[in-house]
Amino acid sequence: EIVAAIEAALGDGPLAGRRVLVTSGPTHEPIDPVRYIANRSSGAQGTAVARALAALGAQVVFITGPAEVPPPDGVELVRVESAAQMAAAVQEALPADAGVFAAAVADWRVASASDRKLKKTRDGMPALEFAENPDILKSVAQMDAGRPRLVVGFAAETDDVIAHATAKRARKGCDWILANDVSPDTGIMGGSENAVTLITDKGPETWPRMGKDAVAARLADRIAAALAE
Amino acid sequence: EIVAAIEAALGDGPLAGRRVLVTSGPTHEPIDPVRYIANRSSGAQGTAVARALAALGAQVVFITGPAEVPPPDGVELVRVESAAQMAAAVQEALPADAGVFAAAVADWRVASASDRKLKKTRDGMPALEFAENPDILKSVAQMDAGRPRLVVGFAAETDDVIAHATAKRARKGCDWILANDVSPDTGIMGGSENAVTLITDKGPETWPRMGKDAVAARLADRIAAALAE
Repeated sequence: EIVAAIEAALGDGPLAGRRVLVTSGPTHEPIDPVRYIANRSSGAQGTAVARALAALGAQVVFITGPAEVPPPDGVELVRVESAAQMAAAVQEALPADAGVFAAAVADWRVASASDRKLKKTRDGMPALEFAENPDILKSVAQMDAGRPRLVVGFAAETDDVIAHATAKRARKGCDWILANDVSPDTGIMGGSENAVTLITDKGPETWPRMGKDAVAARLADRIAAALAE
Repeated sequence: EIVAAIEAALGDGPLAGRRVLVTSGPTHEPIDPVRYIANRSSGAQGTAVARALAALGAQVVFITGPAEVPPPDGVELVRVESAAQMAAAVQEALPADAGVFAAAVADWRVASASDRKLKKTRDGMPALEFAENPDILKSVAQMDAGRPRLVVGFAAETDDVIAHATAKRARKGCDWILANDVSPDTGIMGGSENAVTLITDKGPETWPRMGKDAVAARLADRIAAALAE
């Protein structure tokens, strides 16, 4: 790790000269000035991936929602709140050699978000109208020009993990999906370990349960190998 | 817990021997295992109030949602997530001499909360059905027997602060409302200062803008004076 840090500082390392985009954390979608919809993501895995990529010498742009864990050192940091802000930040950060989309982006926003606090009424909760958020992973994976050579998505699933993640890879058009089982009884969401399956064009590859830092190091190595091909 | 009670009873201070309940922080209402609805509350003001009450010798039961700021020392700490859990914790913590309800409790929960991750469908967002949460402040303020002598509510408003808070005091049946203006341009939500108006049976009393610790100290002094009457 010290060697990696020195290599990164000297601009060596297998990812020296590569620009990699990493999204991380949850997004917050405002309902009104005091309420919002959030995703249960600590940002721990995305942060670890960004740190591991930087340690291999990559120039990392780290675009993060309001995460619990602090961002890594040695990256270009962009803080956002909502999915729309994250999508804009991603577009601004391109082009890149690779993109790792680890953020838990809200699929929907509240189209009727109010700039005044919504009040209880006799009829109950004011109706919320939802609108679909931009699909950041898909839009980057399916770019006509300027697509990163390697686009990696994440999938957080609670059941049929491999089937859902394999379908997601095809639907989004990304190269890899790193899928993890976030069922409440795994303790992964918010925990320090992860049990992941990497889905590539060769099919699913289940990794042993290991620390999020170890998952990140292994993924960074694989990204370096893929970009070296 | 017993030790704390004895210490509080033996302590000096104008609130020695008094048991005070304080709620604080946001609540999180689950939509599915990875999504929830939250309120923008750091827990800073409620935490400061609990600390100030303990400093005056009170035995404080501190019931907090997932707040950003750490809980104070020297209190009996109860951590909850949802409004329903907070309501149950409050009932369990009674009886008390006074209750300060500073938490930003969600008015609604998702009645159709799922234990599986909701999927995007061709028709868009799965319909969410909402149900009204228990009104913690009102239920304590309107207890037939065992009501705390002093029940203090908080109101976070973005417009017509005094009118809304005065109406809230009457509607809930509480003794006092501490109202604050959380319009985004005040910087109060998540900030270190607060600009409050205390609504009592004598009407509104607007305090100068001051630190949240100073607001808490002033409120604790007023609570001590009211319980000494």
